[in-house]
Amino acid sequence: MSAPEGAPGPLSLNTATVRDQWNLAQAIEGCARHGIPGISPWRDKVAALGLAQAARHIRDAGLFVSGLCRGGAFPAADATGRRAAIDDNLRAIEEAHALGARCLVVLGGGLPPGSKDLPGARAMFHDGLAEVLPVARAAGVTLALEPLHPMTCADRSVLTTLAQALDLCDALGDGLGIALDVYHVWWDPMLAQQVARAGRRIAAFHVCDWLVPTTDLVFDRGMPGDGVIDIPAIRAMAEAAGYAGCCELELLSRRWWQEDPDQVLLRAKAAHAAAC
Amino acid sequence: MSAPEGAPGPLSLNTATVRDQWNLAQAIEGCARHGIPGISPWRDKVAALGLAQAARHIRDAGLFVSGLCRGGAFPAADATGRRAAIDDNLRAIEEAHALGARCLVVLGGGLPPGSKDLPGARAMFHDGLAEVLPVARAAGVTLALEPLHPMTCADRSVLTTLAQALDLCDALGDGLGIALDVYHVWWDPMLAQQVARAGRRIAAFHVCDWLVPTTDLVFDRGMPGDGVIDIPAIRAMAEAAGYAGCCELELLSRRWWQEDPDQVLLRAKAAHAAAC
Repeated sequence: MSAPEGAPGPLSLNTATVRDQWNLAQAIEGCARHGIPGISPWRDKVAALGLAQAARHIRDAGLFVSGLCRGGAFPAADATGRRAAIDDNLRAIEEAHALGARCLVVLGGGLPPGSKDLPGARAMFHDGLAEVLPVARAAGVTLALEPLHPMTCADRSVLTTLAQALDLCDALGDGLGIALDVYHVWWDPMLAQQVARAGRRIAAFHVCDWLVPTTDLVFDRGMPGDGVIDIPAIRAMAEAAGYAGCCELELLSRRWWQEDPDQVLLRAKAAHAAAC
Repeated sequence: MSAPEGAPGPLSLNTATVRDQWNLAQAIEGCARHGIPGISPWRDKVAALGLAQAARHIRDAGLFVSGLCRGGAFPAADATGRRAAIDDNLRAIEEAHALGARCLVVLGGGLPPGSKDLPGARAMFHDGLAEVLPVARAAGVTLALEPLHPMTCADRSVLTTLAQALDLCDALGDGLGIALDVYHVWWDPMLAQQVARAGRRIAAFHVCDWLVPTTDLVFDRGMPGDGVIDIPAIRAMAEAAGYAGCCELELLSRRWWQEDPDQVLLRAKAAHAAAC
Protein backbone atom coordinates (compact mmCIF):
# COMPACT_ATOMS: atom_id res chain seq x y z
CA MET A 1 0.00 0.00 0.00
CA SER A 2 1.36 3.34 -1.06
CA ALA A 3 0.06 5.93 1.41
CA PRO A 4 0.42 9.44 0.03
CA GLU A 5 2.15 12.23 1.86
CA GLY A 6 0.01 14.33 4.15
CA ALA A 7 -3.34 13.91 5.82
CA PRO A 8 -6.68 13.51 4.10
CA GLY A 9 -8.88 16.56 3.68
CA PRO A 10 -11.26 17.39 6.52
CA LEU A 11 -13.91 14.85 7.43
CA SER A 12 -17.52 15.27 6.39
CA LEU A 13 -20.31 13.02 7.63
CA ASN A 14 -22.81 11.76 5.09
CA THR A 15 -26.01 11.36 7.09
CA ALA A 16 -26.59 7.90 5.55
CA THR A 17 -23.85 6.73 7.91
CA VAL A 18 -26.23 7.20 10.86
CA ARG A 19 -29.40 6.75 8.83
CA ASP A 20 -31.33 4.70 11.33
CA GLN A 21 -30.13 6.37 14.51
CA TRP A 22 -30.30 10.13 14.00
CA ASN A 23 -32.50 12.70 12.36
CA LEU A 24 -30.79 15.67 10.72
CA ALA A 25 -30.81 17.88 13.82
CA GLN A 26 -29.15 15.10 15.83
CA ALA A 27 -26.58 14.52 13.07
CA ILE A 28 -25.72 18.23 12.94
CA GLU A 29 -25.30 18.34 16.70
CA GLY A 30 -23.29 15.11 16.62
CA CYS A 31 -20.87 16.55 14.08
CA ALA A 32 -20.46 19.71 16.11
CA ARG A 33 -19.96 17.73 19.34
CA HIS A 34 -17.31 15.47 17.78
CA GLY A 35 -15.49 18.22 15.88
CA ILE A 36 -16.44 16.90 12.44
CA PRO A 37 -16.48 20.04 10.30
CA GLY A 38 -18.64 18.88 7.35
CA ILE A 39 -21.97 17.23 6.70
CA SER A 40 -23.74 15.84 3.65
CA PRO A 41 -27.45 15.37 4.28
CA TRP A 42 -29.92 13.22 2.39
CA ARG A 43 -32.99 14.98 1.11
CA ASP A 44 -35.50 12.97 3.13
CA LYS A 45 -33.82 14.11 6.34
CA VAL A 46 -33.77 17.72 5.11
CA ALA A 47 -37.46 17.51 4.31
CA ALA A 48 -38.25 16.10 7.73
CA LEU A 49 -36.57 19.03 9.46
CA GLY A 50 -37.65 21.64 6.92
CA LEU A 51 -35.31 23.22 4.40
CA ALA A 52 -34.96 26.67 5.99
CA GLN A 53 -34.56 25.19 9.44
CA ALA A 54 -31.95 22.72 8.16
CA ALA A 55 -29.95 25.47 6.47
CA ARG A 56 -30.04 27.60 9.59
CA HIS A 57 -29.14 24.78 11.94
CA ILE A 58 -26.16 23.73 9.80
CA ARG A 59 -24.97 27.32 9.51
CA ASP A 60 -25.34 27.95 13.23
CA ALA A 61 -23.31 24.80 13.94
CA GLY A 62 -20.52 26.12 11.71
CA LEU A 63 -20.53 23.10 9.39
CA PHE A 64 -19.82 23.13 5.67
CA VAL A 65 -22.10 21.10 3.39
CA SER A 66 -19.99 18.81 1.20
CA GLY A 67 -22.97 17.72 -0.86
CA LEU A 68 -26.68 17.08 -0.96
CA CYS A 69 -27.83 13.50 -1.64
CA ARG A 70 -29.34 13.13 -4.14
CA GLY A 71 -30.69 13.92 -7.58
CA GLY A 72 -30.63 12.06 -10.85
CA ALA A 73 -32.59 8.85 -11.48
CA PHE A 74 -33.97 10.15 -14.76
CA PRO A 75 -34.85 6.82 -16.46
CA ALA A 76 -38.56 6.05 -16.12
CA ALA A 77 -41.18 3.90 -17.81
CA ASP A 78 -43.03 6.76 -19.52
CA ALA A 79 -43.00 10.49 -20.22
CA THR A 80 -44.90 11.25 -17.03
CA GLY A 81 -42.29 9.47 -14.97
CA ARG A 82 -39.45 11.20 -16.78
CA ARG A 83 -41.12 14.60 -16.22
CA ALA A 84 -41.59 13.83 -12.53
CA ALA A 85 -37.89 12.97 -12.23
CA ILE A 86 -36.91 16.25 -13.89
CA ASP A 87 -39.21 18.25 -11.61
CA ASP A 88 -37.78 16.48 -8.59
CA ASN A 89 -34.26 17.35 -9.73
CA LEU A 90 -35.24 21.02 -10.09
CA ARG A 91 -36.40 20.96 -6.46
CA ALA A 92 -33.16 19.23 -5.45
CA ILE A 93 -31.14 21.98 -7.13
CA GLU A 94 -33.06 24.62 -5.16
CA GLU A 95 -32.43 22.71 -1.95
CA ALA A 96 -28.71 22.36 -2.67
CA HIS A 97 -28.55 26.09 -3.31
CA ALA A 98 -30.43 26.92 -0.12
CA LEU A 99 -28.10 24.70 1.91
CA GLY A 100 -24.96 26.13 0.33
CA ALA A 101 -23.99 22.59 -0.70
CA ARG A 102 -20.75 22.21 -2.65
CA CYS A 103 -22.58 19.91 -5.04
CA LEU A 104 -25.76 17.99 -5.67
CA VAL A 105 -24.87 14.31 -5.94
CA VAL A 106 -26.54 12.87 -9.04
CA LEU A 107 -27.20 9.13 -9.43
CA GLY A 108 -28.03 7.22 -12.57
CA GLY A 109 -31.15 5.44 -11.45
CA GLY A 110 -31.93 1.90 -12.55
CA LEU A 111 -33.70 0.37 -15.49
CA PRO A 112 -37.40 1.23 -15.64
CA PRO A 113 -39.44 -1.67 -14.21
CA GLY A 114 -39.70 -4.51 -16.70
CA SER A 115 -37.21 -2.97 -19.12
CA LYS A 116 -34.08 -4.64 -20.47
CA ASP A 117 -33.13 -1.62 -22.57
CA LEU A 118 -29.95 -0.44 -20.88
CA PRO A 119 -28.81 1.83 -23.74
CA GLY A 120 -32.28 3.38 -23.70
CA ALA A 121 -32.11 4.02 -19.95
CA ARG A 122 -28.71 5.61 -20.39
CA ALA A 123 -30.11 7.87 -23.10
CA MET A 124 -32.89 8.92 -20.69
CA PHE A 125 -30.25 9.77 -18.10
CA HIS A 126 -28.40 11.91 -20.61
CA ASP A 127 -31.54 13.71 -21.69
CA GLY A 128 -32.80 14.39 -18.17
CA LEU A 129 -29.42 15.68 -17.13
CA ALA A 130 -29.23 17.96 -20.16
CA GLU A 131 -32.64 19.39 -19.28
CA VAL A 132 -31.84 20.33 -15.67
CA LEU A 133 -28.24 21.42 -16.22
CA PRO A 134 -29.01 25.02 -17.28
CA VAL A 135 -31.02 25.50 -14.07
CA ALA A 136 -28.14 24.11 -12.01
CA ARG A 137 -25.70 26.44 -13.76
CA ALA A 138 -27.92 29.43 -13.08
CA ALA A 139 -28.13 28.45 -9.41
CA GLY A 140 -24.38 27.88 -9.18
CA VAL A 141 -24.95 24.28 -8.08
CA THR A 142 -22.47 21.71 -9.40
CA LEU A 143 -24.13 18.45 -10.42
CA ALA A 144 -21.72 15.75 -9.25
CA LEU A 145 -22.27 12.58 -11.27
CA GLU A 146 -21.64 9.56 -9.08
CA PRO A 147 -21.05 6.30 -10.93
CA LEU A 148 -22.14 3.47 -8.66
CA HIS A 149 -20.71 -0.02 -8.55
CA PRO A 150 -21.86 -2.11 -11.55
CA MET A 151 -23.67 -4.48 -9.18
CA THR A 152 -26.28 -1.71 -8.80
CA CYS A 153 -26.82 -1.28 -12.54
CA ALA A 154 -30.22 -2.99 -12.76
CA ASP A 155 -32.04 -1.21 -9.98
CA ARG A 156 -30.05 1.84 -8.88
CA SER A 157 -27.50 3.14 -11.34
CA VAL A 158 -27.18 2.79 -15.07
CA LEU A 159 -24.20 5.10 -14.54
CA THR A 160 -21.50 2.52 -13.81
CA THR A 161 -18.05 3.87 -14.59
CA LEU A 162 -15.96 7.00 -14.28
CA ALA A 163 -15.30 6.93 -18.01
CA GLN A 164 -19.03 6.99 -18.72
CA ALA A 165 -19.57 9.88 -16.28
CA LEU A 166 -16.69 11.85 -17.76
CA ASP A 167 -18.01 11.26 -21.27
CA LEU A 168 -21.21 12.96 -20.07
CA CYS A 169 -19.21 15.82 -18.55
CA ASP A 170 -17.38 16.25 -21.85
CA ALA A 171 -20.58 16.13 -23.86
CA LEU A 172 -22.68 18.47 -21.72
CA GLY A 173 -20.06 20.90 -20.48
CA ASP A 174 -19.83 23.30 -17.56
CA GLY A 175 -21.72 22.75 -14.36
CA LEU A 176 -21.05 19.01 -14.15
CA GLY A 177 -18.54 17.27 -11.95
CA ILE A 178 -17.77 13.87 -10.50
CA ALA A 179 -18.53 12.39 -7.09
CA LEU A 180 -15.69 9.93 -6.68
CA ASP A 181 -16.66 7.19 -4.22
CA VAL A 182 -13.86 4.72 -3.64
CA TYR A 183 -16.36 1.92 -2.94
CA HIS A 184 -17.86 2.21 -6.39
CA VAL A 185 -14.71 2.58 -8.48
CA TRP A 186 -11.83 0.80 -6.73
CA TRP A 187 -12.10 -2.28 -9.00
CA ASP A 188 -11.85 -0.30 -12.25
CA PRO A 189 -8.76 -1.11 -14.37
CA MET A 190 -9.01 2.41 -15.82
CA LEU A 191 -9.23 4.09 -12.40
CA ALA A 192 -5.91 5.95 -12.41
CA GLN A 193 -6.35 7.06 -16.00
CA GLN A 194 -9.92 8.28 -15.47
CA VAL A 195 -9.21 10.06 -12.17
CA ALA A 196 -6.42 11.94 -13.95
CA ARG A 197 -8.83 12.72 -16.77
CA ALA A 198 -11.39 14.02 -14.27
CA GLY A 199 -8.93 16.60 -12.99
CA ARG A 200 -10.58 19.51 -11.20
CA ARG A 201 -14.01 18.16 -12.06
CA ILE A 202 -13.84 15.97 -8.92
CA ALA A 203 -16.47 17.69 -6.79
CA ALA A 204 -16.73 15.15 -3.97
CA PHE A 205 -14.60 12.34 -2.53
CA HIS A 206 -16.53 9.63 -0.70
CA VAL A 207 -15.03 6.88 1.38
CA CYS A 208 -15.98 3.57 2.93
CA ASP A 209 -14.50 0.12 2.41
CA TRP A 210 -15.15 -3.16 0.55
CA LEU A 211 -15.58 -6.01 3.02
CA VAL A 212 -14.56 -9.61 2.28
CA PRO A 213 -16.96 -11.27 2.14
CA THR A 214 -19.63 -8.75 1.20
CA THR A 215 -23.03 -10.13 2.09
CA ASP A 216 -25.38 -7.54 0.60
CA LEU A 217 -25.22 -5.59 -2.65
CA VAL A 218 -26.16 -2.27 -1.04
CA PHE A 219 -26.01 -2.25 2.76
CA ASP A 220 -22.81 -4.07 3.71
CA ARG A 221 -20.13 -1.43 3.33
CA GLY A 222 -17.21 -1.25 5.71
CA MET A 223 -15.55 1.43 7.83
CA PRO A 224 -12.33 2.64 6.11
CA GLY A 225 -9.56 0.22 7.02
CA ASP A 226 -11.86 -2.76 7.54
CA GLY A 227 -11.76 -3.85 3.90
CA VAL A 228 -9.48 -4.18 0.88
CA ILE A 229 -9.62 -0.75 -0.77
CA ASP A 230 -6.34 1.12 -0.86
CA ILE A 231 -8.05 4.42 0.00
CA PRO A 232 -4.85 6.48 0.43
CA ALA A 233 -3.74 5.45 -3.07
CA ILE A 234 -7.03 6.61 -4.58
CA ARG A 235 -6.90 9.84 -2.56
CA ALA A 236 -3.40 10.42 -3.92
CA MET A 237 -4.74 10.02 -7.47
CA ALA A 238 -7.50 12.55 -6.76
CA GLU A 239 -5.09 15.01 -5.19
CA ALA A 240 -2.67 14.66 -8.08
CA ALA A 241 -5.60 15.49 -10.36
CA GLY A 242 -6.21 18.68 -8.39
CA TYR A 243 -8.73 17.70 -5.72
CA ALA A 244 -8.16 19.55 -2.48
CA GLY A 245 -11.49 19.05 -0.75
CA CYS A 246 -12.85 17.01 2.09
CA CYS A 247 -13.19 13.32 2.73
CA GLU A 248 -16.86 12.36 3.09
CA LEU A 249 -17.74 9.19 4.93
CA GLU A 250 -20.79 7.56 3.36
CA LEU A 251 -21.26 4.21 5.03
CA LEU A 252 -24.43 2.32 4.21
CA SER A 253 -24.28 -0.61 6.58
CA ARG A 254 -26.90 -2.58 8.43
CA ARG A 255 -24.20 -3.44 10.94
CA TRP A 256 -23.15 0.12 11.71
CA TRP A 257 -26.79 1.25 11.80
CA GLN A 258 -27.12 -0.96 14.90
CA GLU A 259 -24.38 0.86 16.79
CA ASP A 260 -24.52 3.82 19.12
CA PRO A 261 -24.13 6.82 16.78
CA ASP A 262 -21.64 8.60 19.02
CA GLN A 263 -19.47 5.49 18.88
CA VAL A 264 -19.85 5.44 15.07
CA LEU A 265 -18.56 9.01 14.89
CA LEU A 266 -15.61 8.21 17.16
CA ARG A 267 -14.72 5.25 14.93
CA ALA A 268 -15.22 7.40 11.84
CA LYS A 269 -12.76 10.00 13.11
CA ALA A 270 -10.17 7.34 13.89
CA ALA A 271 -10.68 5.65 10.51
CA HIS A 272 -10.40 8.99 8.74
CA ALA A 273 -7.07 9.67 10.40
CA ALA A 274 -5.64 6.18 9.99
CA ALA A 275 -7.04 4.70 6.80
CA CYS A 276 -7.99 7.49 4.40
CA MET B 1 -35.36 -5.60 -26.74
CA SER B 2 -33.75 -6.16 -30.10
CA ALA B 3 -33.68 -9.90 -30.74
CA PRO B 4 -31.31 -10.78 -33.55
CA GLU B 5 -32.30 -12.83 -36.55
CA GLY B 6 -31.88 -16.58 -36.23
CA ALA B 7 -31.55 -18.99 -33.36
CA PRO B 8 -28.75 -19.10 -30.82
CA GLY B 9 -25.93 -21.54 -31.34
CA PRO B 10 -26.35 -25.05 -29.92
CA LEU B 11 -26.77 -25.39 -26.17
CA SER B 12 -23.95 -26.55 -23.94
CA LEU B 13 -24.41 -27.37 -20.26
CA ASN B 14 -21.85 -26.05 -17.84
CA THR B 15 -21.82 -28.61 -15.06
CA ALA B 16 -21.95 -25.85 -12.42
CA THR B 17 -25.62 -25.55 -13.39
CA VAL B 18 -26.31 -28.90 -11.71
CA ARG B 19 -23.38 -28.69 -9.31
CA ASP B 20 -25.11 -30.10 -6.25
CA GLN B 21 -27.29 -32.69 -7.95
CA TRP B 22 -25.14 -34.58 -10.44
CA ASN B 23 -21.64 -35.95 -10.77
CA LEU B 24 -20.00 -35.76 -14.20
CA ALA B 25 -21.24 -39.14 -15.40
CA GLN B 26 -24.81 -38.16 -14.52
CA ALA B 27 -24.42 -34.78 -16.24
CA ILE B 28 -23.10 -36.44 -19.41
CA GLU B 29 -25.99 -38.87 -19.43
CA GLY B 30 -28.43 -36.05 -18.70
CA CYS B 31 -27.20 -34.04 -21.67
CA ALA B 32 -27.47 -37.08 -23.93
CA ARG B 33 -30.96 -37.91 -22.63
CA HIS B 34 -32.23 -34.35 -23.17
CA GLY B 35 -30.56 -33.80 -26.53
CA ILE B 36 -28.17 -31.14 -25.26
CA PRO B 37 -25.17 -31.48 -27.58
CA GLY B 38 -22.44 -29.80 -25.52
CA ILE B 39 -20.97 -29.90 -22.04
CA SER B 40 -18.47 -27.81 -20.09
CA PRO B 41 -17.20 -29.66 -17.03
CA TRP B 42 -15.55 -28.26 -13.94
CA ARG B 43 -12.22 -29.79 -13.05
CA ASP B 44 -13.28 -31.15 -9.67
CA LYS B 45 -15.96 -33.23 -11.36
CA VAL B 46 -13.48 -34.43 -13.98
CA ALA B 47 -11.04 -35.45 -11.24
CA ALA B 48 -13.76 -37.33 -9.37
CA LEU B 49 -14.56 -39.43 -12.43
CA GLY B 50 -10.99 -39.70 -13.68
CA LEU B 51 -9.66 -37.81 -16.69
CA ALA B 52 -9.43 -40.72 -19.15
CA GLN B 53 -12.81 -42.07 -18.10
CA ALA B 54 -14.36 -38.59 -18.43
CA ALA B 55 -12.94 -38.09 -21.92
CA ARG B 56 -14.19 -41.54 -23.02
CA HIS B 57 -17.65 -41.06 -21.51
CA ILE B 58 -18.13 -37.65 -23.16
CA ARG B 59 -16.91 -38.97 -26.50
CA ASP B 60 -19.14 -42.04 -26.30
CA ALA B 61 -22.12 -39.80 -25.56
CA GLY B 62 -21.36 -37.77 -28.69
CA LEU B 63 -21.02 -34.46 -26.84
CA PHE B 64 -18.69 -31.63 -27.72
CA VAL B 65 -16.76 -29.93 -24.90
CA SER B 66 -17.31 -26.16 -25.07
CA GLY B 67 -14.76 -25.50 -22.36
CA LEU B 68 -13.04 -26.74 -19.24
CA CYS B 69 -13.56 -24.73 -16.03
CA ARG B 70 -11.15 -23.47 -14.95
CA GLY B 71 -7.60 -22.22 -14.82
CA GLY B 72 -6.06 -18.90 -13.89
CA ALA B 73 -6.08 -17.49 -10.34
CA PHE B 74 -2.38 -16.62 -10.52
CA PRO B 75 -2.20 -13.97 -7.78
CA ALA B 76 -0.84 -15.43 -4.54
CA ALA B 77 0.75 -14.23 -1.33
CA ASP B 78 4.24 -15.54 -2.09
CA ALA B 79 6.42 -17.20 -4.71
CA THR B 80 5.46 -20.70 -3.57
CA GLY B 81 1.79 -19.87 -4.05
CA ARG B 82 2.41 -18.36 -7.46
CA ARG B 83 4.43 -21.44 -8.51
CA ALA B 84 1.62 -23.72 -7.32
CA ALA B 85 -0.90 -21.77 -9.39
CA ILE B 86 1.27 -22.05 -12.48
CA ASP B 87 1.72 -25.81 -11.98
CA ASP B 88 -2.01 -26.20 -11.53
CA ASN B 89 -2.62 -24.33 -14.77
CA LEU B 90 -0.20 -26.63 -16.59
CA ARG B 91 -2.26 -29.60 -15.38
CA ALA B 92 -5.45 -27.84 -16.45
CA ILE B 93 -4.04 -27.36 -19.95
CA GLU B 94 -3.29 -31.09 -20.16
CA GLU B 95 -6.79 -31.90 -19.02
CA ALA B 96 -8.37 -29.52 -21.55
CA HIS B 97 -6.29 -31.15 -24.27
CA ALA B 98 -7.27 -34.66 -23.18
CA LEU B 99 -10.95 -33.72 -23.16
CA GLY B 100 -10.79 -32.03 -26.55
CA ALA B 101 -12.15 -28.85 -24.95
CA ARG B 102 -12.58 -25.84 -27.20
CA CYS B 103 -10.93 -23.73 -24.52
CA LEU B 104 -9.69 -23.62 -20.96
CA VAL B 105 -11.63 -20.92 -19.13
CA VAL B 106 -9.16 -18.74 -17.23
CA LEU B 107 -10.22 -16.62 -14.25
CA GLY B 108 -8.37 -13.76 -12.64
CA GLY B 109 -8.37 -14.91 -9.05
CA GLY B 110 -8.77 -12.48 -6.18
CA LEU B 111 -6.41 -10.39 -4.12
CA PRO B 112 -3.98 -12.45 -2.04
CA PRO B 113 -5.27 -12.69 1.55
CA GLY B 114 -4.63 -9.45 3.43
CA SER B 115 -3.47 -7.56 0.36
CA LYS B 116 -4.87 -4.28 -0.90
CA ASP B 117 -2.47 -4.16 -3.85
CA LEU B 118 -4.82 -4.55 -6.80
CA PRO B 119 -2.31 -3.39 -9.44
CA GLY B 120 0.16 -5.89 -7.99
CA ALA B 121 -2.35 -8.73 -8.20
CA ARG B 122 -3.09 -7.79 -11.79
CA ALA B 123 0.61 -7.90 -12.57
CA MET B 124 0.80 -11.40 -11.05
CA PHE B 125 -2.07 -12.46 -13.28
CA HIS B 126 -0.24 -11.14 -16.34
CA ASP B 127 2.99 -12.85 -15.37
CA GLY B 128 1.42 -16.22 -14.61
CA LEU B 129 -0.53 -16.15 -17.83
CA ALA B 130 2.60 -15.31 -19.81
CA GLU B 131 4.38 -18.27 -18.25
CA VAL B 132 1.77 -20.91 -19.12
CA LEU B 133 0.80 -19.54 -22.51
CA PRO B 134 3.58 -21.23 -24.52
CA VAL B 135 2.51 -24.59 -23.09
CA ALA B 136 -1.10 -23.91 -24.03
CA ARG B 137 -0.05 -22.95 -27.54
CA ALA B 138 1.96 -26.14 -27.93
CA ALA B 139 -1.03 -28.17 -26.77
CA GLY B 140 -3.41 -26.31 -29.05
CA VAL B 141 -5.53 -25.22 -26.08
CA THR B 142 -7.02 -21.73 -26.24
CA LEU B 143 -6.89 -19.92 -22.92
CA ALA B 144 -10.21 -18.07 -22.72
CA LEU B 145 -9.90 -15.12 -20.34
CA GLU B 146 -13.17 -14.59 -18.53
CA PRO B 147 -13.62 -11.20 -16.92
CA LEU B 148 -15.97 -11.60 -13.96
CA HIS B 149 -18.37 -9.01 -12.61
CA PRO B 150 -16.55 -6.29 -10.63
CA MET B 151 -18.39 -7.36 -7.47
CA THR B 152 -16.06 -10.40 -7.45
CA CYS B 153 -12.87 -8.33 -7.70
CA ALA B 154 -11.71 -8.73 -4.09
CA ASP B 155 -11.99 -12.48 -3.72
CA ARG B 156 -12.43 -14.08 -7.15
CA SER B 157 -11.39 -12.00 -10.11
CA VAL B 158 -9.01 -9.11 -10.46
CA LEU B 159 -9.90 -9.45 -14.16
CA THR B 160 -13.00 -7.27 -14.27
CA THR B 161 -13.63 -5.95 -17.77
CA LEU B 162 -13.53 -7.01 -21.39
CA ALA B 163 -11.18 -4.12 -22.18
CA GLN B 164 -8.72 -5.37 -19.58
CA ALA B 165 -8.90 -8.93 -20.93
CA LEU B 166 -8.43 -7.74 -24.51
CA ASP B 167 -5.46 -5.62 -23.48
CA LEU B 168 -3.89 -8.87 -22.21
CA CYS B 169 -4.75 -10.64 -25.46
CA ASP B 170 -3.13 -7.81 -27.40
CA ALA B 171 -0.05 -7.82 -25.20
CA LEU B 172 0.55 -11.58 -25.07
CA GLY B 173 -0.64 -12.64 -28.49
CA ASP B 174 -1.77 -15.90 -30.02
CA GLY B 175 -3.36 -18.61 -27.96
CA LEU B 176 -5.53 -16.31 -25.90
CA GLY B 177 -9.23 -15.66 -26.31
CA ILE B 178 -12.22 -14.36 -24.41
CA ALA B 179 -14.97 -16.16 -22.52
CA LEU B 180 -17.86 -13.75 -22.86
CA ASP B 181 -20.36 -14.28 -20.06
CA VAL B 182 -23.36 -11.98 -20.34
CA TYR B 183 -23.83 -11.99 -16.56
CA HIS B 184 -20.42 -10.49 -16.00
CA VAL B 185 -20.37 -7.86 -18.74
CA TRP B 186 -23.93 -6.73 -19.44
CA TRP B 187 -23.55 -3.52 -17.36
CA ASP B 188 -20.41 -2.33 -19.20
CA PRO B 189 -20.86 0.97 -21.08
CA MET B 190 -18.10 -0.17 -23.44
CA LEU B 191 -19.71 -3.57 -24.11
CA ALA B 192 -20.58 -3.13 -27.78
CA GLN B 193 -17.25 -1.53 -28.56
CA GLN B 194 -15.23 -4.20 -26.77
CA VAL B 195 -17.18 -7.16 -28.18
CA ALA B 196 -16.50 -5.77 -31.65
CA ARG B 197 -12.85 -5.37 -30.70
CA ALA B 198 -12.74 -8.99 -29.51
CA GLY B 199 -13.78 -10.23 -32.94
CA ARG B 200 -12.89 -13.86 -33.53
CA ARG B 201 -11.11 -14.05 -30.21
CA ILE B 202 -14.45 -14.84 -28.54
CA ALA B 203 -13.86 -18.48 -27.60
CA ALA B 204 -16.92 -19.06 -25.42
CA PHE B 205 -20.33 -17.47 -24.91
CA HIS B 206 -21.87 -18.02 -21.48
CA VAL B 207 -25.42 -17.18 -20.48
CA CYS B 208 -27.53 -16.77 -17.39
CA ASP B 209 -29.49 -13.75 -16.16
CA TRP B 210 -29.28 -10.90 -13.63
CA LEU B 211 -32.14 -11.14 -11.14
CA VAL B 212 -33.76 -8.10 -9.49
CA PRO B 213 -33.16 -8.15 -6.62
CA THR B 214 -29.95 -10.16 -6.51
CA THR B 215 -29.45 -11.51 -3.01
CA ASP B 216 -25.97 -13.05 -3.22
CA LEU B 217 -22.83 -11.87 -4.98
CA VAL B 218 -22.00 -15.31 -6.40
CA PHE B 219 -24.82 -17.83 -6.16
CA ASP B 220 -27.99 -16.00 -7.15
CA ARG B 221 -27.93 -16.05 -10.92
CA GLY B 222 -31.09 -16.47 -12.94
CA MET B 223 -32.28 -18.68 -15.78
CA PRO B 224 -32.16 -16.75 -19.09
CA GLY B 225 -35.36 -14.74 -19.37
CA ASP B 226 -35.89 -14.43 -15.62
CA GLY B 227 -33.78 -11.26 -15.30
CA VAL B 228 -32.93 -7.98 -17.01
CA ILE B 229 -30.11 -8.89 -19.40
CA ASP B 230 -30.92 -8.43 -23.08
CA ILE B 231 -29.15 -11.68 -24.01
CA PRO B 232 -30.20 -11.69 -27.70
CA ALA B 233 -28.71 -8.23 -28.13
CA ILE B 234 -25.37 -9.36 -26.68
CA ARG B 235 -25.44 -12.53 -28.80
CA ALA B 236 -26.03 -10.35 -31.84
CA MET B 237 -22.94 -8.31 -30.94
CA ALA B 238 -20.87 -11.49 -30.59
CA GLU B 239 -22.16 -12.89 -33.87
CA ALA B 240 -21.49 -9.61 -35.65
CA ALA B 241 -17.93 -9.87 -34.33
CA GLY B 242 -17.59 -13.33 -35.86
CA TYR B 243 -18.66 -15.71 -33.11
CA ALA B 244 -20.48 -18.74 -34.49
CA GLY B 245 -20.21 -21.14 -31.56
CA CYS B 246 -22.49 -22.51 -28.92
CA CYS B 247 -24.45 -20.97 -26.10
CA GLU B 248 -23.22 -22.32 -22.76
CA LEU B 249 -25.54 -22.17 -19.76
CA GLU B 250 -23.54 -21.53 -16.60
CA LEU B 251 -26.01 -20.96 -13.80
CA LEU B 252 -24.63 -20.75 -10.28
CA SER B 253 -27.75 -20.62 -8.17
CA ARG B 254 -28.61 -21.92 -4.75
CA ARG B 255 -32.22 -21.93 -5.87
CA TRP B 256 -31.71 -24.03 -9.01
CA TRP B 257 -29.38 -26.39 -7.14
CA GLN B 258 -32.45 -27.39 -5.10
CA GLU B 259 -34.41 -28.48 -8.16
CA ASP B 260 -34.69 -31.84 -9.86
CA PRO B 261 -31.85 -31.78 -12.40
CA ASP B 262 -33.96 -33.21 -15.22
CA GLN B 263 -36.39 -30.33 -14.67
CA VAL B 264 -33.47 -27.89 -14.72
CA LEU B 265 -32.40 -29.23 -18.12
CA LEU B 266 -35.94 -28.99 -19.50
CA ARG B 267 -36.14 -25.36 -18.32
CA ALA B 268 -32.66 -24.71 -19.72
CA LYS B 269 -33.69 -25.96 -23.16
CA ALA B 270 -36.81 -23.79 -23.13
CA ALA B 271 -34.86 -20.74 -21.93
CA HIS B 272 -32.20 -21.33 -24.57
CA ALA B 273 -34.84 -21.37 -27.30
CA ALA B 274 -36.87 -18.43 -25.99
CA ALA B 275 -34.49 -16.02 -24.28
CA CYS B 276 -30.98 -16.42 -25.71
